[in-house]
Amino acid sequence: MIKGILITLEGPEGAGKTTVLQQLLPILEKQQVSFVTTREPGGIRIAEQIREIILAPENTAIDGKTELLLFAAARRQHLNEKVRPALAAGKLVIIDRFIDSSVAYQGYARGIEVADVEMINNFATDGLLPDLTLYFDVETAIGLSRVMSGDREVNRLDLEAQDMHQKVRAGYQAIAKANPQRIVTIDASNPLEDVVAATVLAIQTKFPELF
Amino acid sequence: MIKGILITLEGPEGAGKTTVLQQLLPILEKQQVSFVTTREPGGIRIAEQIREIILAPENTAIDGKTELLLFAAARRQHLNEKVRPALAAGKLVIIDRFIDSSVAYQGYARGIEVADVEMINNFATDGLLPDLTLYFDVETAIGLSRVMSGDREVNRLDLEAQDMHQKVRAGYQAIAKANPQRIVTIDASNPLEDVVAATVLAIQTKFPELF
Repeated sequence: MIKGILITLEGPEGAGKTTVLQQLLPILEKQQVSFVTTREPGGIRIAEQIREIILAPENTAIDGKTELLLFAAARRQHLNEKVRPALAAGKLVIIDRFIDSSVAYQGYARGIEVADVEMINNFATDGLLPDLTLYFDVETAIGLSRVMSGDREVNRLDLEAQDMHQKVRAGYQAIAKANPQRIVTIDASNPLEDVVAATVLAIQTKFPELF
Repeated sequence: MIKGILITLEGPEGAGKTTVLQQLLPILEKQQVSFVTTREPGGIRIAEQIREIILAPENTAIDGKTELLLFAAARRQHLNEKVRPALAAGKLVIIDRFIDSSVAYQGYARGIEVADVEMINNFATDGLLPDLTLYFDVETAIGLSRVMSGDREVNRLDLEAQDMHQKVRAGYQAIAKANPQRIVTIDASNPLEDVVAATVLAIQTKFPELF
């Protein structure tokens, strides 16, 4: 690879992105693909500091637009310090959540104009788009029950009403429909092995040279 | 007053905005004006947390666009939690630095497109503009020597090259020229009493009902 490949994973809470990614890693390793997996804030100190502000349970006064600006700032640092250098080195970079999360959460769910969200995203990323986005679609009730029974700490965003989660899903579905060249929808209600198989197939289909 | 009045103070480091404001307060008190003075982040916890990230000396990896997004996020919280409620209560609100600082510092000095800076500002403020902006203009060398001889701690932004300060000044001058209805330029190279007198005169001229 001369120029790297950027794949992003998207989906509502409880869609199982992280679990699928863990299953995907040994498969990529076996294929000797040179890859980096990351998620915003990705261990970038500045982005971690921003994320702490966003997720702090006491910061309920943060409104949707402030949240969007903060996510965009963290996104930019993460791109600058981690993603772009890896792409420049020719690696496959997989990011858990990227621009579509802002459109789904701050746009469709919180009601900020989608065009404004895209404008802020575009400013923060200098227009960088993923080569492939895997959208893990799951029914709201299934996704939420996975979150609540999980081991990780429940944060402020998890506690938002189920209504918001439904809006997030509808948003993702609209984004996927509008970007069929870039986004592949994967049915994440299925058993894990099926979801992993569909994920590998989507990557193979788009980038046969990796396998 | 039924609707409040918003005045902003702008100028490069060392222009003396803070000192002038201190002299202005007893004059407003004598006139029994109901006012609030503030500056971003204005004691708003979320905005203070954001400001800490921006000004931390170790955060040199922050680029101009990230900085702009962070300032915009802090600005919005400060507006939401402090400025808009005071304006709604009919008060005179004086903010030390506002939208023009972003245009001068991140736009003209750091080279982000001025149109982009204005777009981000506009998103963060929902289009709120000051009723009057006082721009304290001072020669770069005089401003910097004031900063360096002052009592307050020198922060990361102070340490930027003098070259940047010159660009900031040129930026402010361009903004003032483009917005003659809103912005009054005050020669801040003059002795303090003259600067204070010019400040009072500018406010009196625009808002004779206050005096």
